[in-house]
Amino acid sequence: MKIIHMLFFFTVFSFTISHASLNDFCVADLKAPNTPSGYPCKPLARITSDDFSFHGLVAGNTNNSFKFGFNSATITNFPALNGLGISALRIDIDQGGSIPMHTHPDATELLIVVQGEITAGFLTPTTFYSKTLKPGDIFVFPKGMLHFAVNSGKGKATAFGALSNENPRTKILDLLLFANKLPSNLVAQTTLLDLAQVKKLKAQFGGSG
Amino acid sequence: MKIIHMLFFFTVFSFTISHASLNDFCVADLKAPNTPSGYPCKPLARITSDDFSFHGLVAGNTNNSFKFGFNSATITNFPALNGLGISALRIDIDQGGSIPMHTHPDATELLIVVQGEITAGFLTPTTFYSKTLKPGDIFVFPKGMLHFAVNSGKGKATAFGALSNENPRTKILDLLLFANKLPSNLVAQTTLLDLAQVKKLKAQFGGSG
Amino acid sequence: MKIIHMLFFFTVFSFTISHASLNDFCVADLKAPNTPSGYPCKPLARITSDDFSFHGLVAGNTNNSFKFGFNSATITNFPALNGLGISALRIDIDQGGSIPMHTHPDATELLIVVQGEITAGFLTPTTFYSKTLKPGDIFVFPKGMLHFAVNSGKGKATAFGALSNENPRTKILDLLLFANKLPSNLVAQTTLLDLAQVKKLKAQFGGSG
Amino acid sequence: MKIIHMLFFFTVFSFTISHASLNDFCVADLKAPNTPSGYPCKPLARITSDDFSFHGLVAGNTNNSFKFGFNSATITNFPALNGLGISALRIDIDQGGSIPMHTHPDATELLIVVQGEITAGFLTPTTFYSKTLKPGDIFVFPKGMLHFAVNSGKGKATAFGALSNENPRTKILDLLLFANKLPSNLVAQTTLLDLAQVKKLKAQFGGSG
Amino acid sequence: MKIIHMLFFFTVFSFTISHASLNDFCVADLKAPNTPSGYPCKPLARITSDDFSFHGLVAGNTNNSFKFGFNSATITNFPALNGLGISALRIDIDQGGSIPMHTHPDATELLIVVQGEITAGFLTPTTFYSKTLKPGDIFVFPKGMLHFAVNSGKGKATAFGALSNENPRTKILDLLLFANKLPSNLVAQTTLLDLAQVKKLKAQFGGSG
Amino acid sequence: MKIIHMLFFFTVFSFTISHASLNDFCVADLKAPNTPSGYPCKPLARITSDDFSFHGLVAGNTNNSFKFGFNSATITNFPALNGLGISALRIDIDQGGSIPMHTHPDATELLIVVQGEITAGFLTPTTFYSKTLKPGDIFVFPKGMLHFAVNSGKGKATAFGALSNENPRTKILDLLLFANKLPSNLVAQTTLLDLAQVKKLKAQFGGSG
Repeated sequence: MKIIHMLFFFTVFSFTISHASLNDFCVADLKAPNTPSGYPCKPLARITSDDFSFHGLVAGNTNNSFKFGFNSATITNFPALNGLGISALRIDIDQGGSIPMHTHPDATELLIVVQGEITAGFLTPTTFYSKTLKPGDIFVFPKGMLHFAVNSGKGKATAFGALSNENPRTKILDLLLFANKLPSNLVAQTTLLDLAQVKKLKAQFGGSG
Repeated sequence: MKIIHMLFFFTVFSFTISHASLNDFCVADLKAPNTPSGYPCKPLARITSDDFSFHGLVAGNTNNSFKFGFNSATITNFPALNGLGISALRIDIDQGGSIPMHTHPDATELLIVVQGEITAGFLTPTTFYSKTLKPGDIFVFPKGMLHFAVNSGKGKATAFGALSNENPRTKILDLLLFANKLPSNLVAQTTLLDLAQVKKLKAQFGGSG
Repeated sequence: MKIIHMLFFFTVFSFTISHASLNDFCVADLKAPNTPSGYPCKPLARITSDDFSFHGLVAGNTNNSFKFGFNSATITNFPALNGLGISALRIDIDQGGSIPMHTHPDATELLIVVQGEITAGFLTPTTFYSKTLKPGDIFVFPKGMLHFAVNSGKGKATAFGALSNENPRTKILDLLLFANKLPSNLVAQTTLLDLAQVKKLKAQFGGSG
Repeated sequence: MKIIHMLFFFTVFSFTISHASLNDFCVADLKAPNTPSGYPCKPLARITSDDFSFHGLVAGNTNNSFKFGFNSATITNFPALNGLGISALRIDIDQGGSIPMHTHPDATELLIVVQGEITAGFLTPTTFYSKTLKPGDIFVFPKGMLHFAVNSGKGKATAFGALSNENPRTKILDLLLFANKLPSNLVAQTTLLDLAQVKKLKAQFGGSG
Repeated sequence: MKIIHMLFFFTVFSFTISHASLNDFCVADLKAPNTPSGYPCKPLARITSDDFSFHGLVAGNTNNSFKFGFNSATITNFPALNGLGISALRIDIDQGGSIPMHTHPDATELLIVVQGEITAGFLTPTTFYSKTLKPGDIFVFPKGMLHFAVNSGKGKATAFGALSNENPRTKILDLLLFANKLPSNLVAQTTLLDLAQVKKLKAQFGGSG
Repeated sequence: MKIIHMLFFFTVFSFTISHASLNDFCVADLKAPNTPSGYPCKPLARITSDDFSFHGLVAGNTNNSFKFGFNSATITNFPALNGLGISALRIDIDQGGSIPMHTHPDATELLIVVQGEITAGFLTPTTFYSKTLKPGDIFVFPKGMLHFAVNSGKGKATAFGALSNENPRTKILDLLLFANKLPSNLVAQTTLLDLAQVKKLKAQFGGSG
């Protein structure tokens, strides 16, 4: 008797809740147009356990001038993060390497060191805040600060990063200034860099103009 | 000449910016009363590089019935996170151990496995979403979902967690139901657990009533 | 003359405003895919006064083990609430009945008692906050707290509820733990409930595994 | 043995959680200065069950020209609502009475009719949305809309209101225009009301100028 | 060698970033249905420099009873503002003219005077805040306040306005009360305006009823 | 009789509203510690009309290397903006001058040209968006984009700016890289600028290291 009532109760509720489930999560339908709050949701019927796991936060390729590699899990390759305000990355820096100056305008980053030694910091016009980190240490780059990191130890260094945005923007200074076609003299005029310096880095980063 | 102008310009700006720095970050003054948006900020003059680093995200003590340990870096021990919407933790689970059923009402959690094998999942009334994870895999527990994890492999398992809140609440089911003084019959009435079961767990978790 | 100018003025304005009306409200088009901020809006041309009223916040069926009934007006049946951050419900509890332990991870609830006597409360690991309420009294369950209510008086009790979310999630503990197919031994391991207790309640709530 | 471990575990946790409790709720300290996100929180040690209940949502005095009365539970008299985004009120309208034209710039209002008949509506420049409501009916006034309600039936009418703001502003048109000292000719110039009309209502509402 | 590595690096990055660009901005696709957070985004491939500029913030037509004109750049005619929380307008007031009483429920307005003299103010039931402004002066109308402005000098006055919403609502009192079909007696009953006054202004603003 | 009732009604209301006024606006008390949502509010009793007006949005000093000047009205000198999400500035650029490369991580900027000709733009790694503007034209720099402007015409150019933040951060690239004490070799390593270039600009902007 009790069981019957409960099952009836359950049936009514499960109907209510299967509808309500749409706000338990909103896995992105990346093919639909984005909106200011994120992507439209995939239908609940098409969601499986696979949607909530990501595979491949492993060491990235460090074969470049900065000698750093990374892999990230953001909305682009992990659509379940849609609307949830968080993403993750793994960073590897070879000995002598660094992470180039960059900023995330809309995300705070936590850098969790797990191997080697990393010196990390961020800049203000009057000072800079910096720290040498060992495994088990964390550094926080507050949202919007221009920041950097260098492998300051011997051997490889590895860290995990957590960002307070599922779709964080990464603004690498060199790419913004030197990888596009903004005329070199305009770059020089508005940064006071020497024109020759601008042209040299434009060549290196694939920009023109 | 140019230099003089620029220094003058710099002086004006640095004045402006030393004031503006208050919104570059807001390191919590934990002794002041909290507000709905977070703690009041420590004065800029008292902020140093040390404020932005945390030491001790290492393996926690697993000497308890669930055989799991954790350490976390949240606003309580890392006040620079104030207002920034992110925190981190390290989880270690001995073989055969688990993380008890719990929820974070105001934080999504990313579980980044770095050692061993962990089976993680979360519950809805009609289904559950679960996955067995290896190093390099991530699982996401969307905000507010009741979730769990078990060490499903051999040997110890380790993971890092990232939470989308600098001051996340952790609601462990057993502690809420069995660690306080809510009368056992009220617990039984509103959960339909047997009274004897309630009393047994109240004894185990230090509750009464 | 004045009238003519004013009508001209009105015409220009009404054009502007008929466009602007889209942000006066955004009645949900429930057939379109949801987004993290809510449903897309129905076209203004299809909105009538009927969209802004709801019919049926009456006593719900109390024929179940907990002896409580409810009806709610949320986005699912009152699409005008889309994006507005509020919803309502009516709760009826027969004598001796209760509202089972549950949580709303993303909504604060006000319980406004209008008939009978209700004892309401919410739990923390170290304490519980609870109060016996009469008509004209309100209790607040802050967002994300595990809470309960019992009819502690004679005869039927009735209350209205207001929730700070148009699409609130209701997480009834028993349904999460016992109405789905999560294996009973996993439930037991991660809650420390006895396996027999888990199986008994799984049978009662329609779960398996 | 198990019990000892669990109690140890509990002790560690309860320490963590007694600190964390500050974000379970933030009962307003109304004597401290407000902030854009709400009042600073009262210390946890001073919070009791009484903080979470309110007494007196009863019929208000209808002895005024509009023949309506109200009582409300907002942050001013129910400080536990701080930061929670919701408040409640009770409205009583005598036969022939009305609620004057007003707006809540920062709160959506649900009007839940429990007795009598109320005709409620809100205005746009091109149309108005209005509905006659009976007990069990709800009307929604979206945030920022100029709205009104009249007792359109026989006898007294009663409704409960829920507002999506713990500290909602109520902007009664007549009080804004006629209860302060803004010079009558300025009111006339910027509303095109006749000067005599302005002066007449200024006298009635206690304004001058 | 270095260059090759850098170009490889650039290629990987530019792939990542061309996807990520979707959150650099979200130019509105005004033909798609709106959502509570704004319009869906136009595809990145269709965005050009033209999207980010607006032409025509010039003097508006002042040929109406209030003798004021305006032009505005909001999401309707400047879709790049979608999701960005800001818009602009230009206001011109002929000598002796005024801006009628109105409110923006969801936007704070800055009024930047560039020519002539403007007296601006906003109302509360107990007082009003008002100031006479010259070129270079700013007045702020906080979100949701009923406000007005008059040309209090000689000759034409001009100001720019900035609003904290890309899709701000403008609620002109006279249009809400007198331009639609809400029955005149209902307006009179809920405002205490004389019925004759209501009918007179209804005629002037094109309303009926 | 009517008048008496209304005055009684007014008295009750004005009491309610004088309390409620705290959320009509929250003028910053700049001497109190900031919080993540803004400054605590000055007491209502100390607020006057002067708080809501600002004086001095005039041409700034252009006597520097970039030949640009500015004045701004932000929370620092216009505390009434606290919590309101908007601020304003005036920009003047001499012929041949420019606004240096900078970013506002937490504010969108509208640039409203009122005199002369300005070419404005912002950068992404793959492209740049730029436009030449005349009086009456607006350009939008979406939040967080690295942007610039040059006087591309003859004679002086003037523009007003509106920013979607009352306390916007301005991150001028040269000041971040060259005005502090971050060691030059670290700047060179993480930007790939030549060391000599770094040292030259450090000398110009007052930095060291």
